Amino acid sequence: MTVQEADDGRSETQTAIMDATYRALCRRGYADLTMQSIADEFEKSKSLIHYHYDTKEELLAAFLDYLLDKFLAQVEVADDDDPTERLDTLVEALLSGPERAGDFQVAMLELRSQTPYVEAYREAFAANDEYLAGLLAETIRDGIEAGAFCDVDPERAAETILVMIDGARTRSVVFDDDDTVANVRAAIDGYVNSHLRRTE
Amino acid sequence: MTVQEADDGRSETQTAIMDATYRALCRRGYADLTMQSIADEFEKSKSLIHYHYDTKEELLAAFLDYLLDKFLAQVEVADDDDPTERLDTLVEALLSGPERAGDFQVAMLELRSQTPYVEAYREAFAANDEYLAGLLAETIRDGIEAGAFCDVDPERAAETILVMIDGARTRSVVFDDDDTVANVRAAIDGYVNSHLRRTE
Repeated sequence: MTVQEADDGRSETQTAIMDATYRALCRRGYADLTMQSIADEFEKSKSLIHYHYDTKEELLAAFLDYLLDKFLAQVEVADDDDPTERLDTLVEALLSGPERAGDFQVAMLELRSQTPYVEAYREAFAANDEYLAGLLAETIRDGIEAGAFCDVDPERAAETILVMIDGARTRSVVFDDDDTVANVRAAIDGYVNSHLRRTE
Repeated sequence: MTVQEADDGRSETQTAIMDATYRALCRRGYADLTMQSIADEFEKSKSLIHYHYDTKEELLAAFLDYLLDKFLAQVEVADDDDPTERLDTLVEALLSGPERAGDFQVAMLELRSQTPYVEAYREAFAANDEYLAGLLAETIRDGIEAGAFCDVDPERAAETILVMIDGARTRSVVFDDDDTVANVRAAIDGYVNSHLRRTE
């Protein structure tokens, strides 16, 4: 068993399949995604993909879990002690996303729009969201206890931030100019500054 | 020329085609939408649809314009003098949407996710958004002048509200329980109350 396996229960092959899925989604979007287009991005045999995942839907639900793990690995590196900085790190990481963010957000919005049709996607999105809401609420709660944030309802503030992040992602697909992304980021910072941060 | 034509430049037939498109989107979503599935919801001859719109894409871009007109007709009826009430009316109308809101939001999110592939959709979404941002900013500006709202940047506050509305719509597709919609609505009200409304 490799360190990778011990870490997140995903074998090296599975991780390579996930990376291939990421590249295929960035290249072709979701509507045109097939097991073959994922295999085209995968260095090993296509049969390995079928061995691990029976259907495209099963593979993509696993991919959503993989994204959450990647996100958590990314924000754990920062490991800020200060709740204000930690919230910044979380929001920044959620907004910026992985490399090729534009192409990838398009594919993710397509995938989200399919949640009413594919139960496995809906479950995976819902589980990710619940985890992120908990993480944000915990950070806000820490901030309130440390006196850095106002005495807001942590769960509600976390929900508000997630609503804005989902809105930012949706809008970034329709309006792909840099101005729009910067405006959306400013809107979220404005909310955090005026609603959460205790002014000195 | 009917009153309808004089009003919004849309003939009765075109309005009937738009209504048929709405029903087809609610019934089948966007991915399965064809000119035939719109014709199935249309009482007159299918050839009339082709006479007015060459392609599905052209028809759906016209449909997005039609939605904006319907929205404007809806909020104009209210015609609140008070900027606080007017903002409430706009947010409520943007959040609640038309009847069969759930099915319809699914189709709209599918359509939005196609904006990078279909320029006509991107243009129509962008034009609608610009109009709505202007309408919200104007209302907020009126509220500031009337002393009801704090001295915020009206354009930025309008953008923030639109980000939250887009987030709410995206989330309502993934989380279709009533609790989630109520939470999102509470999050937006919380922002408006704490950030915009001048407390007595």
